[in-house]
Amino acid sequence: MSSHLTTDAPPVTRILAEFVAEFDVTRISERTRREAVRTLVNWLGCTIGGSDHPAVYILLDTLKPFMGEARFAVPGLAANADLFTAALAQGVASHVFDFDDTHLKTIVHPAGPVLSALLPLAQQLGSSGRQVVDALILGVEVECRVANAIYPAHYDIGWHITGTTGVLGAAAGASRLLGLDAQRTLYALGIAATQSSGFREMFGSMCKSFHVGAAARNGLQAALMAQNGFTSSTRAIEAPRGLANVMATSRKYWEITRDLGATWEIDLNSYKPFACGIVIHPAIDACVRLSQRDGVAAADVRSIDLTVHPLVLELTGNKAPTTGLQSKFSVFHAAAAGYIHHRAGENEFSDAAVHDPALIALRDRISAKVDPLTREHEVRASLTDAKGRRFDIHVEHAIGSVENPLSDQALDAKFIDLAEPVLGASQTRRALDIARRVETLAAIDELLSECRSTSAAMA
Amino acid sequence: MSSHLTTDAPPVTRILAEFVAEFDVTRISERTRREAVRTLVNWLGCTIGGSDHPAVYILLDTLKPFMGEARFAVPGLAANADLFTAALAQGVASHVFDFDDTHLKTIVHPAGPVLSALLPLAQQLGSSGRQVVDALILGVEVECRVANAIYPAHYDIGWHITGTTGVLGAAAGASRLLGLDAQRTLYALGIAATQSSGFREMFGSMCKSFHVGAAARNGLQAALMAQNGFTSSTRAIEAPRGLANVMATSRKYWEITRDLGATWEIDLNSYKPFACGIVIHPAIDACVRLSQRDGVAAADVRSIDLTVHPLVLELTGNKAPTTGLQSKFSVFHAAAAGYIHHRAGENEFSDAAVHDPALIALRDRISAKVDPLTREHEVRASLTDAKGRRFDIHVEHAIGSVENPLSDQALDAKFIDLAEPVLGASQTRRALDIARRVETLAAIDELLSECRSTSAAMA
Repeated sequence: MSSHLTTDAPPVTRILAEFVAEFDVTRISERTRREAVRTLVNWLGCTIGGSDHPAVYILLDTLKPFMGEARFAVPGLAANADLFTAALAQGVASHVFDFDDTHLKTIVHPAGPVLSALLPLAQQLGSSGRQVVDALILGVEVECRVANAIYPAHYDIGWHITGTTGVLGAAAGASRLLGLDAQRTLYALGIAATQSSGFREMFGSMCKSFHVGAAARNGLQAALMAQNGFTSSTRAIEAPRGLANVMATSRKYWEITRDLGATWEIDLNSYKPFACGIVIHPAIDACVRLSQRDGVAAADVRSIDLTVHPLVLELTGNKAPTTGLQSKFSVFHAAAAGYIHHRAGENEFSDAAVHDPALIALRDRISAKVDPLTREHEVRASLTDAKGRRFDIHVEHAIGSVENPLSDQALDAKFIDLAEPVLGASQTRRALDIARRVETLAAIDELLSECRSTSAAMA
Repeated sequence: MSSHLTTDAPPVTRILAEFVAEFDVTRISERTRREAVRTLVNWLGCTIGGSDHPAVYILLDTLKPFMGEARFAVPGLAANADLFTAALAQGVASHVFDFDDTHLKTIVHPAGPVLSALLPLAQQLGSSGRQVVDALILGVEVECRVANAIYPAHYDIGWHITGTTGVLGAAAGASRLLGLDAQRTLYALGIAATQSSGFREMFGSMCKSFHVGAAARNGLQAALMAQNGFTSSTRAIEAPRGLANVMATSRKYWEITRDLGATWEIDLNSYKPFACGIVIHPAIDACVRLSQRDGVAAADVRSIDLTVHPLVLELTGNKAPTTGLQSKFSVFHAAAAGYIHHRAGENEFSDAAVHDPALIALRDRISAKVDPLTREHEVRASLTDAKGRRFDIHVEHAIGSVENPLSDQALDAKFIDLAEPVLGASQTRRALDIARRVETLAAIDELLSECRSTSAAMA
């Protein structure tokens, strides 16, 4: 990689630091703010839903004996944690279902590192909901622009880009919330950059979601250290031995600087409708629509033939999954679940769902063939019923893509699905209502206290 | 780098995990144990000496409001910290003077990440001194063998190898002290590996020593998480997207497996006699010896001509430094200090030393020329006095190299130099005495309580 080094790289770290410290947030449009609120609602649902996952409670059990004053909420949990543990735990919880938001251009999951750092800090500072949203927008901007500059070379090497760029987003957001000046924000970005880490090798283990928590904690700590005068290189991203050279084989600095402050990466954020890899979302979407449109009972389906993007069978070609986790890598299971249940949440990928005879019967009548001309968000499905009648559907942009975003209603339904088992029905609706109007909150505590599980809710 | 991927790499992560969990430490020779104790003494002196550096107190000031129960010592400080903060802070303190130990084959500073994780954990567990030394030897072994496998390709890319491999050493040592089985040690190594980070770009800023603290904290936390059942990839080092492929352009797995348990990397550890980069140690050593051997007064020196390795002028060619930090990068200043003071500790690289007229006068009469045939630990010096008499010296292996190690007496003197300003004379001698017999301590607390600064000592 040394052969690519140049010393005349633009000072992108300083440019980002000045942007984070000095940007006039009143210039952010209502449309962008709305997307930021949607990002927060989606993240909060995922975090509450994931909060009782083993990865979260093992982490909390480990840290509890050494924890500081437990003043900071972890959405979905009854007990508070200390500042850094709260950031770690909610980062893990938000990502552990692989159900969080996606910046499709880079496969970054933007909200996890940034919001997991911002919410405990906002509690500490007494920040308003509006301040949190501003900091979220700026943090995501830094995270995704750095990702844009090094993707795909960086990801191809084997880096889990949500961890590696997330720490910069967390530091940027926290710096803004703390009101750091440009110089201290520059140091915060440097202290964060030099902690950038996380291998794709960890996918399939608890470490995948740990990357998100670690990025949040480390970025938050970086901002607090910089506030107190801790120093770093001032060219952490672009220096010959900085992030963009050490961790990528090519880089596009214009992705960081072009239209900075005029366009917003959070506008491109997307939210998964289904609790599995995005690659099989079009197939599920097609089956949901077929089932709803034509009303053929599952038992009357003779066959469903899917025409899919090549990655679908490469990544999710499992014909006969035997566990819930395996079923997330079976387009056949997922499509059958969509057809029968008109949804594909965590329940539809449970161990029980995998052994449901009706679902297995339909799954075994679904086939898929690859078509190199089919795009990633596209699918064709052809259903033949018991009487030999044929029903076709062509989904050009699956639900949840940027072109066909999840509606607010669908996002609300996703939130409710995720949060209700943890918070109960009425508290879930109150939490959702407050989350939707987060920008009006005088203090973020109002939202977080409604996301605390109580024994009553759990009963 | 993807072009180098192989799927038939040996399972080195599991081999290391089994080694750490199961090695019979009674097979470690007395010679290796002696070197481990020397490593601990050198590290402890550096840590006590560095404990009041701004990098340490800024870090502690930042974390204090969020800290857990302060039950864990930071050598040199009066106040305790919580477990993870203690690991962070002593890691920073141990490295902040650039005066700590060096594994010359890889430029890893082995003790920092490992001991900074082990000592707080040993306090928590009530471990004996012998258990700490065993865990130190095993932790350094893992750290340096992984470094051997990826050096120099990894370092050349721009990674600060003490941070990147140190986290593995810290996790290995902590796993051993916790008594984890091989499977949990394997997860600890995985959780550690995926946090591997730290850019050489940070050299010259506080982040350089932060890398050491972060490696200690993250490795320690990895072991504790693994103990509780947190999972990772089981091939974190050798998988196609594991550490050795993602963070290096070439790798030698035999460096990890060959003679494992039969040879010890800690036997190759070295300790700096002088508080500056190793590259100018031969020149200082030559001037100390010349001055002591021939007794020419500094004022009577007409010239000293040095013949040096090419790196010396490339890295330390500053003819007229104006600050203490700059003087560490001036072979002329350093050689003059060695000639006049017969030593080159922190005092000789202070701002005051740089402005000492006698030192400046001698410095300006020292010249250096590069000789490509001179080795890194070698130097020739030729002194001409006011009467025209000439005195020559040839240093083949500078003091502090593996071939010419610092004697126990010199190591004691270095410890005293570093610790006395913090602990006072009598406590420093008591701490040194206890450190020298660390293997006999029933509990590590006995050593750490003697390393706590008191107002009396500081007065």
